[in-house]
Amino acid sequence: MSDLNKLYEIILSRKTDGDPSVSYVAKLFQKGRGTIAQKVGEEATETIIAALSETAESVAQESADLLFHLCILWAECGVTPKQVMDILANREGISGLIEKENRKI
Amino acid sequence: MSDLNKLYEIILSRKTDGDPSVSYVAKLFQKGRGTIAQKVGEEATETIIAALSETAESVAQESADLLFHLCILWAECGVTPKQVMDILANREGISGLIEKENRKI
Amino acid sequence: MSDLNKLYEIILSRKTDGDPSVSYVAKLFQKGRGTIAQKVGEEATETIIAALSETAESVAQESADLLFHLCILWAECGVTPKQVMDILANREGISGLIEKENRKI
Amino acid sequence: MSDLNKLYEIILSRKTDGDPSVSYVAKLFQKGRGTIAQKVGEEATETIIAALSETAESVAQESADLLFHLCILWAECGVTPKQVMDILANREGISGLIEKENRKI
Repeated sequence: MSDLNKLYEIILSRKTDGDPSVSYVAKLFQKGRGTIAQKVGEEATETIIAALSETAESVAQESADLLFHLCILWAECGVTPKQVMDILANREGISGLIEKENRKI
Repeated sequence: MSDLNKLYEIILSRKTDGDPSVSYVAKLFQKGRGTIAQKVGEEATETIIAALSETAESVAQESADLLFHLCILWAECGVTPKQVMDILANREGISGLIEKENRKI
Repeated sequence: MSDLNKLYEIILSRKTDGDPSVSYVAKLFQKGRGTIAQKVGEEATETIIAALSETAESVAQESADLLFHLCILWAECGVTPKQVMDILANREGISGLIEKENRKI
Repeated sequence: MSDLNKLYEIILSRKTDGDPSVSYVAKLFQKGRGTIAQKVGEEATETIIAALSETAESVAQESADLLFHLCILWAECGVTPKQVMDILANREGISGLIEKENRKI
């Protein structure tokens, strides 16, 4: 997977077609936004703890969990990966020619 | 920006060449892992709060902040976006032919 | 201060009488529940980071910040310290005679 | 329970004498500081979510969980409730005669 779009598409398909009895993602959508947000908070905490006291491999594993649940939260809220990436690109001025002028980061 | 690699490369360059007096990213690296982890926690909390009480646009903005600081944490810990994306791809079984057999998500 | 009641009373008085231009607490109430919740999340993250990478004194300092903002969140939500402490007492079975039979904690 | 001291004492006794196979607290101590910190993060997130989208009763319940696990983290780190409460009292200037001069909160 080169970016988050593919993951997001699969998640979206589980939102509409998934069976909560077999799909973890479909079950999360069924439980609702509070539960999904809670998972994002848990995985963020695990990522922080891994960064401070575990291996780089653990940081990568927990970060994968964080991105996975973040994508579910985006799908729940009607946000797309493109929308988020466009904000990053515009904010950091790294889209094309204006890249050189970026001083913020 | 189609994925996190470009953002990560810029962050890495700030890690090695950035001037903490002008670069926000370079300053975060100077402050160290605890401060970077704290920022990830703050942005995760803001994303959760946006999801529960603000607009989708706010969720996207806070998520961009979260991804930005998560990439800084990765660079601090020696983790690459590819490493994280590979974990997601393998875990979810969405790499090529095994996609169909994936039942986990 | 032997418990959280005194702190809570002061916070409540700032909620009703405080001047946001001079009182930090009054300003937080003015900014609203999202901002107060964000502060609780930030201080919880700082407490966790202190526990994993700093001194016991830092853990105590960050915990004080966490309790302080938690009391503000309680005041914002109409929750009292007594209400929370009663839940703890009942749940853990440490109120009077049933203490001995408690096996949960 | 009028303050956190009683709860803390019980937790401390589980730390030294508790059987991880029957005591939840003893099991947490056995799992270590990372797991305890993770629980604090989870309960803080649940408290925030309750404050933004649930009832005051839920906020009280989640806050009780947060305080419970925070006391476990204190015991793990060698921090006492008195130490935290003293910081709050000193910081806010609400110990005795200096209360009136406090302007910070």
